[in-house]
Amino acid sequence: HRTGIMEAVLAEGKMPEDILEIAKAQIEATGRVLITRLNKDQASCLENEFGSERIDWGIHHRTAVVHDGTSIGKTGGVVAIISAGTADINVAEEARMTAAEMGCETVKIYDVGVAGLHRLLNEVKNLESDRPDAVVVAAGREGTLPTVVSSLFDVPVIGLPVSTGYGIGAKGEAALYSMLQSCSVLSVVNIDAGFVAGAFAGRIANTVAAAREQTNSTVTENQKSQLS
Amino acid sequence: HRTGIMEAVLAEGKMPEDILEIAKAQIEATGRVLITRLNKDQASCLENEFGSERIDWGIHHRTAVVHDGTSIGKTGGVVAIISAGTADINVAEEARMTAAEMGCETVKIYDVGVAGLHRLLNEVKNLESDRPDAVVVAAGREGTLPTVVSSLFDVPVIGLPVSTGYGIGAKGEAALYSMLQSCSVLSVVNIDAGFVAGAFAGRIANTVAAAREQTNSTVTENQKSQLS
Amino acid sequence: HRTGIMEAVLAEGKMPEDILEIAKAQIEATGRVLITRLNKDQASCLENEFGSERIDWGIHHRTAVVHDGTSIGKTGGVVAIISAGTADINVAEEARMTAAEMGCETVKIYDVGVAGLHRLLNEVKNLESDRPDAVVVAAGREGTLPTVVSSLFDVPVIGLPVSTGYGIGAKGEAALYSMLQSCSVLSVVNIDAGFVAGAFAGRIANTVAAAREQTNSTVTENQKSQLS
Amino acid sequence: HRTGIMEAVLAEGKMPEDILEIAKAQIEATGRVLITRLNKDQASCLENEFGSERIDWGIHHRTAVVHDGTSIGKTGGVVAIISAGTADINVAEEARMTAAEMGCETVKIYDVGVAGLHRLLNEVKNLESDRPDAVVVAAGREGTLPTVVSSLFDVPVIGLPVSTGYGIGAKGEAALYSMLQSCSVLSVVNIDAGFVAGAFAGRIANTVAAAREQTNSTVTENQKSQLS
Amino acid sequence: HRTGIMEAVLAEGKMPEDILEIAKAQIEATGRVLITRLNKDQASCLENEFGSERIDWGIHHRTAVVHDGTSIGKTGGVVAIISAGTADINVAEEARMTAAEMGCETVKIYDVGVAGLHRLLNEVKNLESDRPDAVVVAAGREGTLPTVVSSLFDVPVIGLPVSTGYGIGAKGEAALYSMLQSCSVLSVVNIDAGFVAGAFAGRIANTVAAAREQTNSTVTENQKSQLS
Amino acid sequence: HRTGIMEAVLAEGKMPEDILEIAKAQIEATGRVLITRLNKDQASCLENEFGSERIDWGIHHRTAVVHDGTSIGKTGGVVAIISAGTADINVAEEARMTAAEMGCETVKIYDVGVAGLHRLLNEVKNLESDRPDAVVVAAGREGTLPTVVSSLFDVPVIGLPVSTGYGIGAKGEAALYSMLQSCSVLSVVNIDAGFVAGAFAGRIANTVAAAREQTNSTVTENQKSQLS
Amino acid sequence: HRTGIMEAVLAEGKMPEDILEIAKAQIEATGRVLITRLNKDQASCLENEFGSERIDWGIHHRTAVVHDGTSIGKTGGVVAIISAGTADINVAEEARMTAAEMGCETVKIYDVGVAGLHRLLNEVKNLESDRPDAVVVAAGREGTLPTVVSSLFDVPVIGLPVSTGYGIGAKGEAALYSMLQSCSVLSVVNIDAGFVAGAFAGRIANTVAAAREQTNSTVTENQKSQLS
Amino acid sequence: HRTGIMEAVLAEGKMPEDILEIAKAQIEATGRVLITRLNKDQASCLENEFGSERIDWGIHHRTAVVHDGTSIGKTGGVVAIISAGTADINVAEEARMTAAEMGCETVKIYDVGVAGLHRLLNEVKNLESDRPDAVVVAAGREGTLPTVVSSLFDVPVIGLPVSTGYGIGAKGEAALYSMLQSCSVLSVVNIDAGFVAGAFAGRIANTVAAAREQTNSTVTENQKSQLS
Ligand SMILES: Nc1ncnc2c1ncn2[C@@H]1O[C@H](COP(=O)(O)O)[C@@H](O)[C@H]1O
Ligand SMILES: Nc1ncnc2c1ncn2[C@@H]1O[C@H](COP(=O)(O)O)[C@@H](O)[C@H]1O
Ligand SMILES: Nc1ncnc2c1ncn2[C@@H]1O[C@H](COP(=O)(O)O)[C@@H](O)[C@H]1O
Ligand SMILES: Nc1ncnc2c1ncn2[C@@H]1O[C@H](COP(=O)(O)O)[C@@H](O)[C@H]1O
Ligand SMILES: [Mg+2]
Ligand SMILES: [Mg+2]
Ligand SMILES: [Mg+2]
Ligand SMILES: [Mg+2]
Ligand SMILES: [Mg+2]
Ligand SMILES: [Mg+2]
Ligand SMILES: [Mg+2]
Ligand SMILES: [Mg+2]
Repeated sequence: HRTGIMEAVLAEGKMPEDILEIAKAQIEATGRVLITRLNKDQASCLENEFGSERIDWGIHHRTAVVHDGTSIGKTGGVVAIISAGTADINVAEEARMTAAEMGCETVKIYDVGVAGLHRLLNEVKNLESDRPDAVVVAAGREGTLPTVVSSLFDVPVIGLPVSTGYGIGAKGEAALYSMLQSCSVLSVVNIDAGFVAGAFAGRIANTVAAAREQTNSTVTENQKSQLS
Repeated sequence: HRTGIMEAVLAEGKMPEDILEIAKAQIEATGRVLITRLNKDQASCLENEFGSERIDWGIHHRTAVVHDGTSIGKTGGVVAIISAGTADINVAEEARMTAAEMGCETVKIYDVGVAGLHRLLNEVKNLESDRPDAVVVAAGREGTLPTVVSSLFDVPVIGLPVSTGYGIGAKGEAALYSMLQSCSVLSVVNIDAGFVAGAFAGRIANTVAAAREQTNSTVTENQKSQLS
Repeated sequence: HRTGIMEAVLAEGKMPEDILEIAKAQIEATGRVLITRLNKDQASCLENEFGSERIDWGIHHRTAVVHDGTSIGKTGGVVAIISAGTADINVAEEARMTAAEMGCETVKIYDVGVAGLHRLLNEVKNLESDRPDAVVVAAGREGTLPTVVSSLFDVPVIGLPVSTGYGIGAKGEAALYSMLQSCSVLSVVNIDAGFVAGAFAGRIANTVAAAREQTNSTVTENQKSQLS
Repeated sequence: HRTGIMEAVLAEGKMPEDILEIAKAQIEATGRVLITRLNKDQASCLENEFGSERIDWGIHHRTAVVHDGTSIGKTGGVVAIISAGTADINVAEEARMTAAEMGCETVKIYDVGVAGLHRLLNEVKNLESDRPDAVVVAAGREGTLPTVVSSLFDVPVIGLPVSTGYGIGAKGEAALYSMLQSCSVLSVVNIDAGFVAGAFAGRIANTVAAAREQTNSTVTENQKSQLS
Repeated sequence: HRTGIMEAVLAEGKMPEDILEIAKAQIEATGRVLITRLNKDQASCLENEFGSERIDWGIHHRTAVVHDGTSIGKTGGVVAIISAGTADINVAEEARMTAAEMGCETVKIYDVGVAGLHRLLNEVKNLESDRPDAVVVAAGREGTLPTVVSSLFDVPVIGLPVSTGYGIGAKGEAALYSMLQSCSVLSVVNIDAGFVAGAFAGRIANTVAAAREQTNSTVTENQKSQLS
Repeated sequence: HRTGIMEAVLAEGKMPEDILEIAKAQIEATGRVLITRLNKDQASCLENEFGSERIDWGIHHRTAVVHDGTSIGKTGGVVAIISAGTADINVAEEARMTAAEMGCETVKIYDVGVAGLHRLLNEVKNLESDRPDAVVVAAGREGTLPTVVSSLFDVPVIGLPVSTGYGIGAKGEAALYSMLQSCSVLSVVNIDAGFVAGAFAGRIANTVAAAREQTNSTVTENQKSQLS
Repeated sequence: HRTGIMEAVLAEGKMPEDILEIAKAQIEATGRVLITRLNKDQASCLENEFGSERIDWGIHHRTAVVHDGTSIGKTGGVVAIISAGTADINVAEEARMTAAEMGCETVKIYDVGVAGLHRLLNEVKNLESDRPDAVVVAAGREGTLPTVVSSLFDVPVIGLPVSTGYGIGAKGEAALYSMLQSCSVLSVVNIDAGFVAGAFAGRIANTVAAAREQTNSTVTENQKSQLS
Repeated sequence: HRTGIMEAVLAEGKMPEDILEIAKAQIEATGRVLITRLNKDQASCLENEFGSERIDWGIHHRTAVVHDGTSIGKTGGVVAIISAGTADINVAEEARMTAAEMGCETVKIYDVGVAGLHRLLNEVKNLESDRPDAVVVAAGREGTLPTVVSSLFDVPVIGLPVSTGYGIGAKGEAALYSMLQSCSVLSVVNIDAGFVAGAFAGRIANTVAAAREQTNSTVTENQKSQLS
């Protein structure tokens, strides 16, 4: 696929029957479809239509992949997704499943927060052994987590602000502004834009994986000619 | 003094000669005057008029205390001031000198940042041995530092947002919003409001010190009656 | 507890069954759980499950403490909560119950306003006899009340802006901005953040109470040695 | 004059020579001209041209009335202007001089603030004896003063927000929002709009004065006919 | 009544039963109660309880006066209310009924707009014969109407911005900003604040009416003494 | 030229010598260059270099056309420019000169305002006889003028908001929002964007003029064949 | 009709029965009525009352024209409407039907986007053969489409921002700001203001058509006299 | 270096002598120092102190690298920087030089814009042959360029909004919002944050280069063992 991203279906604001129709068309074309920002009714409608064995659900059922058994070709890219609290999980899952649909292996750490700083330091240390090519960090409220992760870890970190909380800045602006002003090196996507964060991380990871691949196969080519 | 706060002079927008006049009047009345938000011209004018031995300067000469030799009565309260970078020092000094004028002992840590997380953990550990009654944490850009300090340390922490940086949120809004949304327990003052932060911390510290004192003197009273 | 604050459960956005589960786990661990920002359905669900004798309700049932009979150890700290109108009571109660769960004695004055200025002056005068260590003042609309209280009373005052009213600034911004710009010495928390205000006031009060305690016991030690 | 307001010249952004020209034209036509928002250079230029005996200056020389000896016909309306601090005086003077040019008697109280609440109560009590027909209250920062005055005094109160201070809301928004959300009965003009506040208060006062006049003269007419 | 305004009940956010209770208490005390911002359920509840002969309804039943037959003493003040479209009527009615409860005679013109400029000119001309002491002009969307009325008519005009429309500025900000920036002399209240606009206009009108009265009675006194 | 707009040079932020260089290059290419948003220094520099007979200045010298004697081919399109006050003239001139450079005839009315409503009605009536194909209406402060013109006149009206005034909405937002919310049919350009307004109006006028031309010449062709 | 625009009914916020009443009155007067921003209930109510043969529906049934068989007189003006995605269609249809009611022929392209740049280039090329007199381009999210169309095509382009998406700028502000800042020549209407965009485009197109007509008929007149 | 980014000196707001001191210290430590956001005075001061052969200047001299002859070790990463106009070059250069200091090869295209769409398509096609690992696209005003580039090219694209223009959204907000709402896959940094954009792109490119290296050297190791 040209720009390295499959099309996803944004369920928000669509009739359940429209979602079914679009989903079927895309499954017919490619074997799989990613659907994001589902509400309860839309999710049950999918469940009724396709049955649970044809659907991979994100935690809380706000993101889904419907498929006909077709699986994803693995690229070798690795994307990690980190989030701090229960409120951030929906959006983190959207990012994770998007990267997965792009062929990346995904690693998730969903229960670290700045409040438990020592535990966070441990988790990040462990993460290094997974050797992610890119890390998405979802954070609501004051959005500190990506700043801390990027200062600890030498890999591209994408800040994903989440619209949790109440009061001033609670629609995710506090988190977004905070990430844009970060003293660490971060790039950022829009509030709740799990899809964009996942797709961008996937692009990086697949670029890195291609670099690994390319040399490998080149080598194989070289070796063949040299060894023969 | 009734509300536990001396009057300060806000230099911003005043003619140098007006500042001199107000300063002299207050020195005459109380022996000392705190002047905040001085620009270069106003500062030299003070220097020329009073000479350096009658002025205590904050770092960068934006805050000053002019006095006639009268010193401050110590209350026993202890206030710590923490800031991350050079850009935050002006405002941190304003807070520190305000608390000092209220009779508090002040402790300053001006060179820790979230980027150097391990060093920050050390500094905060050391700070505990100073037993501050209240801590002011000045932070610009994304304003993370107060959140981290409050999560590590069991004392009232006052967030003081600073108007540094550029781009969206650079007039201190990113820092302010971030502190208001913090997952740690913080209270906050307005952007660059070093005076308010220092005065509020001073109020807390003096309340705590009075509690220590009061029992001590009560005890002395009790002891006297018992021992006599 | 390390940072002087028990964990609270933020009910908003959670399923009733999830709240029950979290609540039971925490009661099992500590004997008590504080639950904030409950809606009607969540509140009835609690009532049905635990029965009224195991729940302490805040006025209007938006805050609750569920317990197994375990009571709170008193620290000796005293926190006062002031609010102006009926619209501010929910948030004021959240602050009050949070301070209470931290072991503080709480005093409430819920019916004073700037409109009835003379009555307000009386109430604040009376409050002095309760000797609060910290005062939380909740105010919506134009948020004047904390400014007036802080100018009258020599104790740390925490402004708690409330999202009442309509028109420009009605989501609590008018009150928040007004408190941040106050000519009196105030610190502030986010709009409707009763939990943070209560926890911060509790931290101050418990610090003060510890200062009283500490000298008392020291004294007792001293006295013992002297008297013997 | 049809809408009860003379034209004023807004100096801001005009060349000194243009101001002179417009001023002379209007003096020729009506004998007097009100000039607002003058900077230093513009003010000296006026001084040089007309000499001090032909100019009535507002405090700080930001507002001026230039005249050829023609005086204002008194309407009998009374407008009071209240402000809290030195920073508000420029704008308060603009309001006062505008009302004066409309023929009103003006009363000014420029040094009361919410901080000195008891003194404020006294001043407002005294003001009642001046029997103002309308009151303009200028206030910067958190803009509390008009709320308090309106709650104490049974006369139309116009809130005039002033752009003083620093931090969030410091361009006068905090004061403006606060006045718009006020629990007391206030109407409001734009930030720093002393001219509009004075003109509006003048309109009220002149309407009231006309009511007094009208009956008086009617009476005189009646009396004449009856007595003759 | 001291500040010339009866208390009103803000129905928004209150339980119907609470509204009934408050209403009854105030009717008992003063014979009448003004209730604003009623929704459908609250309105039917009032209807059921008091019956239609005890309620004066504003158009669209969002404002109500409930009474026990007690009527309002007329002050002689006259308040006019102008609005442009159906969307502004609710708020205009709130203003009108507030002024009426203060004893003013009220005049309403609810169907003029800037689009029909010539008709508007006619209506304003006619209005002059009603001799209003103050005029409230409600306007949504771009909020032009008060500017035009104030430029045509020599009486205090209060702009009342209304939250109609969609797109940028549609919550009434466009109308509010426009009125605050107006080239005509206007004072302004908050968006949808019909109560404040009506109360402020009522204060002006009653001040003017008192001026008329006062001279009349003085005259009567004078005449008596002279004629006897 | 393909999109019906010559390139203009935006002087703001450019060195005078850079402007000269770009200007000369474009004069060489096309004989003329339009330069916008000039400050004083940039303007004198142009004057010195080219002399006054080679420059057509806009009023106040903020817009200029420099040429080598080459004149503009007239399209037959007619654009009218209306503004209310002196503060709006710079921006109005930028619009007018842009349309002129596109070959349009331009008509200007620079001294009408909503305050003088009757005079405005006259001017608009007169304007009809000029038969403009499009009208640009520049307005600052509350931005009422385009709404009124569009309601009176049956031609495409483009609102051009201007950044005049002070207080809330004074950077042109009040005028912009007001035009976007207008009850009349308007389209709008950005604040102070005289160039865009003039270019858009020029596009309309030239499209209309082309329609006139096209039929004329077609007719001529037809007539020739018929008459011969 | 004087200003070239029929009145439309804004359904939003109106009771279904009120809409019926207004609609019938206008059909009686002019034979047709345009109704915009209908919700589902309002739409079914129309369907029930008038039956489908008397209603022309916009796609998705949010806009409707109800008529009594009366048709529109064609003016010869041509308006094109372009939009990128399904989310923009409601608003695009509102614009299209408004222009159609003004007698314009309308052309619609509803499925081009910047993502498919090459296809977009083709569609715009094809559009040139329809010779539209004005083009409305509806775009949500980042609002790029009008900028691209205007840079490709030499005709007046009106940007119509749409309130789709989520996160910062999602209520249409991103699209609106982007269009106002566009480097291409665009004029803009408010967010979701399909009616205004269609009416403005219709005004342009009808002005152009009149220019074509006028010369034609003049010619006919001329020819008649010459040929006879 | 741990996080893959050298420290840079932010010149803005620093005294020239302070910059010299910091610069010398860092050159002593590492041989080179990157200095960003220099104004004219600061730049001349650098020139005087170090002479031109020790400084690599960015275009317009707002960014500089001072060195002692030490050169950068090349990583093999490739970063491309694209911008549309002269106004964006300062910020683009800051990004480019930051990536270069991280050891990346940099490619720049500084004169493409959406206005010249066909030329842009060509340039992007050519860019593919440079095989960049990451692309930074700087764009002011409406910020369209990154959206278009990302839709054409299958590589991680980082949007860098620039604060050019005037009117609403001119401080870079229009560009920032537009990039955050983009329909293409983009990540974004703060307005004018060339340093962050360059550092983030450098991190990606170096990660990709390491993947190439790593396999190469592994291969070399493998080959050695196999071939020997
Ligand atoms: N009303 C509240 N406002 C702010 N924070 C709260 C509130 N109630 C609970 N919390 C904190 O929010 C966190 C609970 O988040 P959660 O895991 O989503 O229940 C805990 O750290 C609580 O201490
Ligand atoms: N300080 C002021 N604030 C608002 N309007 C003013 C002020 N001073 C004068 N004006 C009005 O602004 C207009 C002057 O505009 P100008 O023609 O630019 O001098 C007149 O209508 C004045 O009545
Ligand atoms: N006053 C103006 N407002 C908006 N755009 C302008 C203005 N003057 C010139 N332009 C356009 O801005 C671009 C000039 O940019 P520059 O290369 O920086 O001179 C050209 O496309 C001009 O047509
Ligand atoms: N243009 C820039 N934008 C953002 N951060 C920068 C920039 N230049 C340097 N920095 C970072 O800002 C910090 C420098 O802050 P300071 O100590 O004030 O010089 C360092 O962490 C730099 O890496
Ligand atoms: Mg977080
Ligand atoms: Mg910081
Ligand atoms: Mg209040
Ligand atoms: Mg004040
Ligand atoms: Mg209106
Ligand atoms: Mg105007
Ligand atoms: Mg779009
Ligand atoms: Mg651009």
